[in-house]
Amino acid sequence: MCTAANYITKDHYFGRNLDLEFSYNEAVTVTPRNFVFNFRRVPPLESHYAIIGMATVADGYPLYYDATNEKGLSMAGLNFPENADYKPEADGKTNITPFEFIPWILGQYTTVDEVKEALKDLNLVNIPFSEQFPLSPLHWIISDRDASITVESVKEGLKVYDNPVGVLTNNPTFDIQLFNLNNFMSLSPEPPENNFSRALGFDTYSRGMGAIGLPGDLSSGSRFVKAVFTKVNSVSGNSESESISQFFQILGSVAQQRGCVDVGGKYEITIYSSCCNTDTGVYYYTTYENSQVTAVDMHRENLDGSELASYPLVKGQQIAMQN
Amino acid sequence: MCTAANYITKDHYFGRNLDLEFSYNEAVTVTPRNFVFNFRRVPPLESHYAIIGMATVADGYPLYYDATNEKGLSMAGLNFPENADYKPEADGKTNITPFEFIPWILGQYTTVDEVKEALKDLNLVNIPFSEQFPLSPLHWIISDRDASITVESVKEGLKVYDNPVGVLTNNPTFDIQLFNLNNFMSLSPEPPENNFSRALGFDTYSRGMGAIGLPGDLSSGSRFVKAVFTKVNSVSGNSESESISQFFQILGSVAQQRGCVDVGGKYEITIYSSCCNTDTGVYYYTTYENSQVTAVDMHRENLDGSELASYPLVKGQQIAMQN
Amino acid sequence: MCTAANYITKDHYFGRNLDLEFSYNEAVTVTPRNFVFNFRRVPPLESHYAIIGMATVADGYPLYYDATNEKGLSMAGLNFPENADYKPEADGKTNITPFEFIPWILGQYTTVDEVKEALKDLNLVNIPFSEQFPLSPLHWIISDRDASITVESVKEGLKVYDNPVGVLTNNPTFDIQLFNLNNFMSLSPEPPENNFSRALGFDTYSRGMGAIGLPGDLSSGSRFVKAVFTKVNSVSGNSESESISQFFQILGSVAQQRGCVDVGGKYEITIYSSCCNTDTGVYYYTTYENSQVTAVDMHRENLDGSELASYPLVKGQQIAMQN
Amino acid sequence: MCTAANYITKDHYFGRNLDLEFSYNEAVTVTPRNFVFNFRRVPPLESHYAIIGMATVADGYPLYYDATNEKGLSMAGLNFPENADYKPEADGKTNITPFEFIPWILGQYTTVDEVKEALKDLNLVNIPFSEQFPLSPLHWIISDRDASITVESVKEGLKVYDNPVGVLTNNPTFDIQLFNLNNFMSLSPEPPENNFSRALGFDTYSRGMGAIGLPGDLSSGSRFVKAVFTKVNSVSGNSESESISQFFQILGSVAQQRGCVDVGGKYEITIYSSCCNTDTGVYYYTTYENSQVTAVDMHRENLDGSELASYPLVKGQQIAMQN
Repeated sequence: MCTAANYITKDHYFGRNLDLEFSYNEAVTVTPRNFVFNFRRVPPLESHYAIIGMATVADGYPLYYDATNEKGLSMAGLNFPENADYKPEADGKTNITPFEFIPWILGQYTTVDEVKEALKDLNLVNIPFSEQFPLSPLHWIISDRDASITVESVKEGLKVYDNPVGVLTNNPTFDIQLFNLNNFMSLSPEPPENNFSRALGFDTYSRGMGAIGLPGDLSSGSRFVKAVFTKVNSVSGNSESESISQFFQILGSVAQQRGCVDVGGKYEITIYSSCCNTDTGVYYYTTYENSQVTAVDMHRENLDGSELASYPLVKGQQIAMQN
Repeated sequence: MCTAANYITKDHYFGRNLDLEFSYNEAVTVTPRNFVFNFRRVPPLESHYAIIGMATVADGYPLYYDATNEKGLSMAGLNFPENADYKPEADGKTNITPFEFIPWILGQYTTVDEVKEALKDLNLVNIPFSEQFPLSPLHWIISDRDASITVESVKEGLKVYDNPVGVLTNNPTFDIQLFNLNNFMSLSPEPPENNFSRALGFDTYSRGMGAIGLPGDLSSGSRFVKAVFTKVNSVSGNSESESISQFFQILGSVAQQRGCVDVGGKYEITIYSSCCNTDTGVYYYTTYENSQVTAVDMHRENLDGSELASYPLVKGQQIAMQN
Repeated sequence: MCTAANYITKDHYFGRNLDLEFSYNEAVTVTPRNFVFNFRRVPPLESHYAIIGMATVADGYPLYYDATNEKGLSMAGLNFPENADYKPEADGKTNITPFEFIPWILGQYTTVDEVKEALKDLNLVNIPFSEQFPLSPLHWIISDRDASITVESVKEGLKVYDNPVGVLTNNPTFDIQLFNLNNFMSLSPEPPENNFSRALGFDTYSRGMGAIGLPGDLSSGSRFVKAVFTKVNSVSGNSESESISQFFQILGSVAQQRGCVDVGGKYEITIYSSCCNTDTGVYYYTTYENSQVTAVDMHRENLDGSELASYPLVKGQQIAMQN
Repeated sequence: MCTAANYITKDHYFGRNLDLEFSYNEAVTVTPRNFVFNFRRVPPLESHYAIIGMATVADGYPLYYDATNEKGLSMAGLNFPENADYKPEADGKTNITPFEFIPWILGQYTTVDEVKEALKDLNLVNIPFSEQFPLSPLHWIISDRDASITVESVKEGLKVYDNPVGVLTNNPTFDIQLFNLNNFMSLSPEPPENNFSRALGFDTYSRGMGAIGLPGDLSSGSRFVKAVFTKVNSVSGNSESESISQFFQILGSVAQQRGCVDVGGKYEITIYSSCCNTDTGVYYYTTYENSQVTAVDMHRENLDGSELASYPLVKGQQIAMQN
């Protein structure tokens, strides 16, 4: 399914794995400030913050999977089947459709605190984009440099959770995912200590044994634990090369290899991994078959324009021959 | 520590992760046929099969970590602390030092069957390369397209195991690693079935749940199980791009992220990942901080020469800007 | 902490382990029909169904831990720290204190369906029994032969969950406990099948391997999974000896051995295990140090009386010498 | 399958669970000093130490499952399928059949050290008792108060392992079982510490969480880990009641409940659990359906006699009514 995370060195980084068995021609897409964002139930945003991220552009509308605005606020939607529950239109509420949610937030807000305030009136309304693009069951992670939240529209209503780990995968609901981390609190990047019995001797026969018990399957519950462990224990330098390398390593720890998740004869794979430097607006990505980092710089576009700029993904291995 | 694996599509691929907290200036190194391989206790190989692989070149001698010869036979040495036990020189035996083992095998043999025969007389003799390069405790995987074996010199003597999974990590001894797989036989890339109780309903709330129980920590026992599961369930196309991408994905499933294995304030990381197409002699690699695939083609060198050709690793991220 | 379960053969059985590091002189206590149950905020029950169960009798009041009434309705309170949240008195509600909850339910109702109806108006009010006996944080399982429910008074209010497994332990909240079972759905009492790879052979080297992955530690989350697995797969004859033996075996699977749960130099142990035949009103129990089954038969008391009958626990091993 | 253990308080205790899906009319059997032990390939023991233990008596010969002699030396045979490999008769060796092994050892030796010496010449010869009683594949634990060993006759020959944990189950071979404990060294009876991340808070929501990761299924590898953890962390008083209660609690932690191990429509269960006070010669046991401790005292028999004394197991629940 998917994993999103953020990471801080000198700059702030935000990105995700998109894990699916098919692809919708997603492209790195820059929305400049004066592209008019129309919404189904609220007035349009005629001008707004510029946005960069991964989107399928349908009928001229960028359906963002994950994106960052020019102020560094970032947001990603991840699969949330069986749990996502969108609502009928509600009077007195800000009725936003799930596919409008990322533009509506990133177009207007600069911090998670502002977003929290705005969410108090929000109703995620069950209006699909089109017959071809029905509503996806999603939940979202929204991050700035200082904080992350998770937003889930479930049967009981709209839930906004503080996300102290800066990681999101899929089911179950975020409160259960976070609670489940308690079961792993004794895992360590350091060698294990003998707590079993002072009367017995033990052999630390391998490095890495302090984290025995960390799950390695690709279910969303297990990826959450593994991604959080990898992220919160990550160590890297501050340079751009070191920072994005570490970020892609974190995402790699929960990547999906073709063959390991069989969905009826097709295989879910990590179609792309992204990493946006939210301070510089450079969006980096790799794809399943192209491990070279490719990048698009938001600020090399005319951000005062009104037209989307889209860069299709570079997908085959770009091999550098040394001889 | 390390993980080695092989993989077959149209061609045969062999490679490994080198996981360490430091680096010895390893370089992709081609040894042509007429480079003289001197040995401490047996006569030199004046001419031999050409070899490509990763090596530290010390005093003009290629200390190979992993390599493939022009006939496609491949071999890698992996850390085996506490278990590796090298022997005094033995009369009537072929006394080969651990650091000579890869050249001696790859210089002369073309198949695993030939190697098995040669190993009957082998004694891995405890002579270090130099004061600066003492003996490393190692065991080895040797693969051709049809079979793999694991070679371990332990207290009881030289053990040669058939390796039906084509994967090697580190401790414990290979017989125990292989036995331990039995505990995971019910794991599946397909969705789990309800075996718990027909009286209860269960919710397959995530894809990938059929492999719940697969370990995800970075100890050598856990990496072995995870790497075998990923490899034996791998699905990919036959093209070179698809094949090497899948191979690097397999290695990525057990890569070591900086911070997750603390060895006294330093961190073990996956310094490089390699993938040699053993049919074409092209050696591909990525490094911790450069995810682009870089390659050296053995056949672009003068293989009838007598001088080593060495290509230092390209280490910083090689980012392709799209705008 | 604790585990409660029910079990059906010809008759219906209900019981629990009490896991604590200390004891309150609990005794098997029969409350006859005309013992006056006074309540703090609602009128007394002057006559009611007779009840048998384990209780500490304080100031003449039976503080039941678990009990069954003469109609077979059963109920047990289990530790629920951090989650239990009792409320101020509420107008228009039936204000029952946690220590009155078992008598109030078992005194008046005969089925889980009746109880569900009664719970609609219930408010678990935060009034302690006395200074000496402050409120315990509890949640409850209520069972008849056909159904079980779990009742939790938490911050959000009173939650009543259907309990399809007929098992209760402690934290986390019951919805999370039940959800967590999904992660174990592939476990089986039968030998494991090879889902890992058709290309590899595996050795079913032991019986019982189909349930590898079942937790064995004594935390409440792990005991829940293990107890449910044991209960739902239980097989036994219908006789009283076979039925109660199987029931104590189920409880034994999650018993706490002295030394395995260290609570600051004291040790939590399974102080007693109970099993009430809810059809005959015979209450069986064992204690940590007396594995012989001791029993009290409700119907050997004068159930039309007004005085409690209390039987202190037989605690030392009752050994039967054969020679 | 089975679990054996020993335990020390003031006295030394030794016993086991017998886990099977059928029963051979086993009975507590005392062999006095002058019962003649005939052997197939070595001279008979006309007089020897007296022995008490569980045995099937066939043709007047006690086929012991587990036993203790009057000097306190104890021994149990446990199922070891696929691994046990008995040998042809060997010249110059002491050729003992597996079914003679317990009488031959316990008849003559008083300490584990003496036994180790005797085993140097031992050959476990492949001669069955009779057509009706073919050879069982077994391995053995032999204990005195100070030490335990495990004896395995495998393809490579007779292996004698020091057994520092005083526990034996079944497959795999004992060296692998002992090695596997390393993977659990960080488990603790105390509450878990946060090693995961100092930046995150965790909730120790249940007692017992320090041992999360302890296996709870009934395979022999898992029972070994769980039984060792329970035993080495056991705490009890020194009285006979406290000691044997704790011992049966240890065995109970790995008991097999009917239904949890399906062997083709039959179910393996813990047919009996035994606990012999090796200092006093009292043999205690419980059965699956009789949890009361029943006992036979060796010293109430005429130990200078020549006839076996056999006490059939008391099997139905022996319930003590309190009213």
